[in-house]
Amino acid sequence: MAPIKVYADRWSQPSRAVIIFCRVNKIDFEEVAVDLFKSQHLTPEFKKVNPMGQVPAIVDGRFKLFESHAILRYLATVFPGVADHWYPADLFTRAKIESILDWHHSNLRRGAATFVMHTALAPFLGLRPRPEAAKQAEKLLVQSLATIESVWLKGDAKFLMGSPLPSIADLSLVCEIMQLEALGDDTCDKLLGGHKKILAWINNVKKATSPHFEEAHMFLFEVKEQMQSKKNAEAAKHGGLETSSQLKIASKL
Amino acid sequence: MAPIKVYADRWSQPSRAVIIFCRVNKIDFEEVAVDLFKSQHLTPEFKKVNPMGQVPAIVDGRFKLFESHAILRYLATVFPGVADHWYPADLFTRAKIESILDWHHSNLRRGAATFVMHTALAPFLGLRPRPEAAKQAEKLLVQSLATIESVWLKGDAKFLMGSPLPSIADLSLVCEIMQLEALGDDTCDKLLGGHKKILAWINNVKKATSPHFEEAHMFLFEVKEQMQSKKNAEAAKHGGLETSSQLKIASKL
Ligand SMILES: N[C@@H](CCC(=O)N[C@@H](CS)C(=O)NCC(=O)O)C(=O)O
Ligand SMILES: N[C@@H](CCC(=O)N[C@@H](CS)C(=O)NCC(=O)O)C(=O)O
Repeated sequence: MAPIKVYADRWSQPSRAVIIFCRVNKIDFEEVAVDLFKSQHLTPEFKKVNPMGQVPAIVDGRFKLFESHAILRYLATVFPGVADHWYPADLFTRAKIESILDWHHSNLRRGAATFVMHTALAPFLGLRPRPEAAKQAEKLLVQSLATIESVWLKGDAKFLMGSPLPSIADLSLVCEIMQLEALGDDTCDKLLGGHKKILAWINNVKKATSPHFEEAHMFLFEVKEQMQSKKNAEAAKHGGLETSSQLKIASKL
Repeated sequence: MAPIKVYADRWSQPSRAVIIFCRVNKIDFEEVAVDLFKSQHLTPEFKKVNPMGQVPAIVDGRFKLFESHAILRYLATVFPGVADHWYPADLFTRAKIESILDWHHSNLRRGAATFVMHTALAPFLGLRPRPEAAKQAEKLLVQSLATIESVWLKGDAKFLMGSPLPSIADLSLVCEIMQLEALGDDTCDKLLGGHKKILAWINNVKKATSPHFEEAHMFLFEVKEQMQSKKNAEAAKHGGLETSSQLKIASKL
């Protein structure tokens, strides 16, 4: 069978989730890089793959699919080698996972992605950040993190909903939270530092998917470094200088 | 078997989707009204049902579930009487439906619900509307409607993705669009008037689920009337008076 094609940008958190999922489950795939920073997602060619012009998207033979959660469900169902815990056949467990995946969109995803866009990313992309949007997004992000910690990580289990093994919901949500690294260590620590369970959970997902997790996140840390250098250069110009975050990064990956 | 409990407010578009789904599929349920206008979703009692404090939510025996899409999937899978077209067992068709359901959250839902909140609803609830949020939401809503028309309603089929019969995605998205009625006839016509396929599709979903569709939407039209009366009273105070929208409403339902 021909490998599936995964259209992805490793800067994109849902793209990373799909790539990690494929690697961990030994799904044969060809990664097609769609560089968001170069607007490759807006080309007519890519719009034929995904009319929404977003990554990730997959092509399996003649079958095209976008939306990372839909992709993860599809891959988990269509490839017999995928272990049940990723997307359990049990109706009740699966329904609870669906509930988390659906919740994600309008809560953690909306909060985190909008906050990153209107703080770290916008100036880097030459866009005008909207502080009011950043403020609302931060509120939603803070609430969402508190919810994850108190509702789905209640108790001592390693993964969401007290599960001993990860599901596609663990992977999707953790990849989203990892994007907060783009905010720099101080902001990231401020947001996550108080959430011991979330920090342990991230580590559990990382371990369960190692070394693919680290490998998929390398690019994020590279971009983060570039952003930090740019910020430092600006700060140096204006007299101050932030300390390098190199060490902290190394300790997290 | 004891009937399931559906916690819902008929003002809420995902609540209506669940109620209509249960009625059409003859799922035995008890509707528990959670009045959002009276903040009943924030009571400790309801938080035991759904820790997120949102409707809809269901309780089936000892099993609790929230998020309307997760609920619709669960009901479609657990009740053998539900026809396959609502949530097809075929992997490829199902994956495409999942893709629409996922897309919905950050596009049509986010655009429509935020726009309604920051225009029609906020003053009615005594909240401060944020015009910038309304503007961004309107943009997303307009884009989302155009996408539905050009991507999923392409061709002559009655339902999304060229299907001859409705799925849970048709029901979810149409219930969201119906909420635009709260904006009043002029705004609603401005948003939807140019989308002939969307208007035909709404009608097809309505017919496929009649009379439950109309019954579930009665309350929305009642609230709309109240809003309109309030607006008219304000306008009368200031000299102008808008014409009654009674006739237009009757022709739409
Ligand atoms: N809900 C979608 C989100 C997809 C998405 O927002 N992708 C971003 C990158 S993380 C993108 O392609 N953005 C480019 C754009 O929207 O123009 C999913 O989970 O796949
Ligand atoms: N994605 C959720 C949305 C649920 C939702 O936003 N419900 C609203 C009513 S439409 C609600 O309960 N709002 C009260 C609140 O958030 O405080 C679903 O589809 O069930």
